[in-house]
Amino acid sequence: MSKPPRYFWIPLILSLILVPAGFWYVGWSKSGEGAGLYSRQWVPDAMFAYWNPTAFYKPVDTIVGKFEGEQCVACHTSVTPGIVKDWQASRHSHAEKKVYCSNCHGNDHQALHMPTPDICATCHATQHNQFEDEKRFGFPSHALAMERALDAKHFVDKPKAEVTACLHCHSVASKCDSCHTRHRFSAAEARRPEACITCHSGPPHPDDETYFHSKHGQLYLAQGAQWDWSKPLRKGNYPAPTCAYCHMQDGKHQVADKSIWKFGIQKINPLSSGNEIKRKQWIKLCSDCHEPEMAAKSLTALDQERKRAWDKLFQAESLLKGLRRKSLLYPSARQRPPYPGDAPDKLWPREAIGFLEGQSSAFYNVSPIERNYFEMWYFSNLGAYKGAAHGDASFVAKGHQAMELSLESIRKQAETLRTLGKTQPTNIWLNGEYTDYNREHN
Amino acid sequence: MSKPPRYFWIPLILSLILVPAGFWYVGWSKSGEGAGLYSRQWVPDAMFAYWNPTAFYKPVDTIVGKFEGEQCVACHTSVTPGIVKDWQASRHSHAEKKVYCSNCHGNDHQALHMPTPDICATCHATQHNQFEDEKRFGFPSHALAMERALDAKHFVDKPKAEVTACLHCHSVASKCDSCHTRHRFSAAEARRPEACITCHSGPPHPDDETYFHSKHGQLYLAQGAQWDWSKPLRKGNYPAPTCAYCHMQDGKHQVADKSIWKFGIQKINPLSSGNEIKRKQWIKLCSDCHEPEMAAKSLTALDQERKRAWDKLFQAESLLKGLRRKSLLYPSARQRPPYPGDAPDKLWPREAIGFLEGQSSAFYNVSPIERNYFEMWYFSNLGAYKGAAHGDASFVAKGHQAMELSLESIRKQAETLRTLGKTQPTNIWLNGEYTDYNREHN
Amino acid sequence: MSKPPRYFWIPLILSLILVPAGFWYVGWSKSGEGAGLYSRQWVPDAMFAYWNPTAFYKPVDTIVGKFEGEQCVACHTSVTPGIVKDWQASRHSHAEKKVYCSNCHGNDHQALHMPTPDICATCHATQHNQFEDEKRFGFPSHALAMERALDAKHFVDKPKAEVTACLHCHSVASKCDSCHTRHRFSAAEARRPEACITCHSGPPHPDDETYFHSKHGQLYLAQGAQWDWSKPLRKGNYPAPTCAYCHMQDGKHQVADKSIWKFGIQKINPLSSGNEIKRKQWIKLCSDCHEPEMAAKSLTALDQERKRAWDKLFQAESLLKGLRRKSLLYPSARQRPPYPGDAPDKLWPREAIGFLEGQSSAFYNVSPIERNYFEMWYFSNLGAYKGAAHGDASFVAKGHQAMELSLESIRKQAETLRTLGKTQPTNIWLNGEYTDYNREHN
Repeated sequence: MSKPPRYFWIPLILSLILVPAGFWYVGWSKSGEGAGLYSRQWVPDAMFAYWNPTAFYKPVDTIVGKFEGEQCVACHTSVTPGIVKDWQASRHSHAEKKVYCSNCHGNDHQALHMPTPDICATCHATQHNQFEDEKRFGFPSHALAMERALDAKHFVDKPKAEVTACLHCHSVASKCDSCHTRHRFSAAEARRPEACITCHSGPPHPDDETYFHSKHGQLYLAQGAQWDWSKPLRKGNYPAPTCAYCHMQDGKHQVADKSIWKFGIQKINPLSSGNEIKRKQWIKLCSDCHEPEMAAKSLTALDQERKRAWDKLFQAESLLKGLRRKSLLYPSARQRPPYPGDAPDKLWPREAIGFLEGQSSAFYNVSPIERNYFEMWYFSNLGAYKGAAHGDASFVAKGHQAMELSLESIRKQAETLRTLGKTQPTNIWLNGEYTDYNREHN
Repeated sequence: MSKPPRYFWIPLILSLILVPAGFWYVGWSKSGEGAGLYSRQWVPDAMFAYWNPTAFYKPVDTIVGKFEGEQCVACHTSVTPGIVKDWQASRHSHAEKKVYCSNCHGNDHQALHMPTPDICATCHATQHNQFEDEKRFGFPSHALAMERALDAKHFVDKPKAEVTACLHCHSVASKCDSCHTRHRFSAAEARRPEACITCHSGPPHPDDETYFHSKHGQLYLAQGAQWDWSKPLRKGNYPAPTCAYCHMQDGKHQVADKSIWKFGIQKINPLSSGNEIKRKQWIKLCSDCHEPEMAAKSLTALDQERKRAWDKLFQAESLLKGLRRKSLLYPSARQRPPYPGDAPDKLWPREAIGFLEGQSSAFYNVSPIERNYFEMWYFSNLGAYKGAAHGDASFVAKGHQAMELSLESIRKQAETLRTLGKTQPTNIWLNGEYTDYNREHN
Repeated sequence: MSKPPRYFWIPLILSLILVPAGFWYVGWSKSGEGAGLYSRQWVPDAMFAYWNPTAFYKPVDTIVGKFEGEQCVACHTSVTPGIVKDWQASRHSHAEKKVYCSNCHGNDHQALHMPTPDICATCHATQHNQFEDEKRFGFPSHALAMERALDAKHFVDKPKAEVTACLHCHSVASKCDSCHTRHRFSAAEARRPEACITCHSGPPHPDDETYFHSKHGQLYLAQGAQWDWSKPLRKGNYPAPTCAYCHMQDGKHQVADKSIWKFGIQKINPLSSGNEIKRKQWIKLCSDCHEPEMAAKSLTALDQERKRAWDKLFQAESLLKGLRRKSLLYPSARQRPPYPGDAPDKLWPREAIGFLEGQSSAFYNVSPIERNYFEMWYFSNLGAYKGAAHGDASFVAKGHQAMELSLESIRKQAETLRTLGKTQPTNIWLNGEYTDYNREHN
């Protein structure tokens, strides 16, 4: 047996050093206050005390003393009667063993805490575990919403006012009252679409627009006030489906396992064996009311719509890749201003085009033509997808028309770049004003 | 009595040949599956089985046997309990002679059919006849929605994803459950605006936006859940009007006969004797609640708004016609790519400008300046009209500002074209990418 | 004691002549029919009979006779049953001393009048006085909405269709049924957001969008139909706040005294002693449900958002002022077409940039770069403000992104103007088409 050669030992030794070093680096970068790879560089605004209470909430020491159950209620009936009424209407106050303010907030008034998901989980372990289980399916998912958002470089670079706004919704990962509002924490409330659409609206995820424009949504709008929302989300209980009826059947707190086209952001094979199982799950669900053939045809129509969308997106990607080969994209990956903590990308910069290459970083800091593709992909494409999935024809039509226009514009820009043989001038999405703005405030 | 000259016989003989030939040609072209002049060239998507069931629905042969009334209900109570509950809540199940599933779908489970308007008409002949009666008023109308849409050439040419989306709504011609949803088929439901606005929303007919922004709509939104919707649409029964209250008074299933400005797409004489009669009908209707003078003044305000809109539109048309006279529109009618089945237009091509000349074909395949006019006319103008008609001031303001901007842009483009003496370069709306795209898929 | 010099007497004499002359001139210019400095030049549309009934309503002399109370009701039960039912459901008909039609409209049927705020004030003096009291806080305010709008020069110049639409809402100053609709005049109705948002929607004041996208608004949408709206707007009575709960606490009919950032249209010092008092009022109000710290942090977040917005706006203003110093703005103040009644500005024309200099006149009649700033300030900035104030993160993000884009565009235009050393060509916002259009119709 001969001695292993150098090309065996060198990679092995490098791995033994670099892999732990990488883990250490990521761990260190995440060890600041709050979530995300840049937690040491990104200082959140004041409201984070409530959006990520585990990391940022600091109790107010106005009242001295330790209080239990009825004592809290007695005093707060006059201080904050509204939330006491909410609690009185909740199952917490009707349980045999009542769940009092102090059970969730603690009883030392100078060291009160906000109820984090872990605290809710002491009683609602099933739901919490289902919620956490979404992490298996990667991002986007509710449970990873805050952490993965703050892993993105653009959160450190973009103007604080914009990214703080994003995180208002991403705080769903850190608190249960995004859907079950204080202090009724009602299951009935969360069964209604309004619980979801505070966040699920507008580009890139026009879920409320597309649902409310569908016949399902119109039935809800017209008649929902008369439905009995205390019933579980199960066959026969509701005259029309809501967000939760389809995506959280039987109240399951995990919405990621039935998604075929995921979130519309990448092309998938809709006929893979895994997706055939999901398809059957959908057909079974839709058959609560419709004939199975109709469900199957609707899913086929969705596949057709998706195929048409990706035909257009791939045409655009192909044009962009052609430009990249001829070095006609400015800035090239090497010319982009480095992000904070961007060591790996500085060593090995590369231009990302399309989802698989990491287009999500194309929010800004890219050439105009790449930004156009980003908008085509992230706004128009996702709008069309949601329209097709939720039964709103107008969003399909609008989204596809917008994609046609983008493709045409990308095609012309590409032609100009190839003809002139030179790159586009500096612009808003580049390292200039937009990117630099407020960097010191983040 | 002299012998009739040649110019008498030749046209006569030609007519005797060509008129029947024309009828035969149109009949043949419409004789494919589905509706429209291009039914032999345009293959619809899978969902058409439900959107135009008469032409496309094929029964599923899963269950063997013939079933009647209670048997259907017995089994479907566990298979699809929701729709059985809907039926149980309907008048169909409370009638002395119950209307069972089998009465509408047939009773051979391997040869079930979808209930088409004709089937509904066996009991609801009055409503069906009123609905069909809309055809007298031409298109746009509900009863011609599917056929006339598919008579348009652009349905064969445009990307399938877009036109399929359009037809989702145009299927109103082929099925009654666009407004009375399965399986309650409720009159009360169709009295509420949500029954209409699944389709009547967005450009070019922002009916929901303009109604819901009006005071009428705001009253509905705030209080509608408490109104008694079982009452007929008649004076004194509703605190504020809805779509159907004004447009389908007393439940009349025909909405075309009271319209003065039609759908805002052409200039009309609002003071013609026919329109004076319609005006009196409107004033009588509005006087259910308002003083007649207010109704008259509102209609005058609408006339003023329309006159201002058409002043602007005619200025734009006049500019376009000037360009056409000097052959400054590219593509000219002869240069446009022929549409499928476009024989008559190939023999005698002409540039259409404005509604009376057929501007509805200006969706695409035209010069940029003509497309600008199309958008001014079809989106901004119609938005302003709906705002004025439904009492939403903001849409009037937005629409007129948009028309000013379009007019200004058209004026400048026209000036440039006249100055340079040459036509505009190829573009998205022309025979290029957009028009060609997916032609093979249609 | 020496004789006062000439520079003492001349100004004194001039003042004694010019100040009364100025007052006389303003008084004379306002003495036309209707409100506003241009009431002699601006003839309103027909609907003003109802929007400003004090000035324009003329009774219809169809019915002869004088009628009292029950007589009106007896006849109108068949003529207009809907509004009689409304009245019967109102407190007016249940009061010990009933308020009949004739009490508000008069009893001579040939000389009926519309009930103006003064007539309502005979019983509801407290509310009317509170409403009028808003005038102390200047414009924008409800009580000055009609008059101040018609003081603006652009109302005389802009196309009538657009400005008439604006005044539909501004009529709130002239009639109480903008919020308490005929003939129920319900307090409960006005407590719901729909009473406000007929007007408070869309740019520049997207109050409905931002409220309805907030968690407060979503709770209202989902559950509001079940709340007891007869209760006063007071701590503990409502599960979530509405427009009126926060802005018209305890039913106070004056919304101007608690506003810190006013309407977002100018930068203020949020920490002035006056604003510290308002801040305490807000914290007290929010503490009806939230912990005071959360309210304080929310206000701080609002201050941060505002500071960031004004950083951007001041950068844009500074660029514009630089251009003005070098005479690179076209049209300059001297080149703009004079407004009607524009004597003072003709004597001393000046370019207005930013709010304090009167940017509100930049709707039109300005250079493109100034219009861009106007849109940045009036639409994007105000949208972001409303989002931050009402708890809708998406409007903050959208508004700030739009401001970044505007700032970038302004920066580039400024660079081009400085480089080329010449001014921009004529455009839509200038004296050309837009401004001239319809001048004769106003």
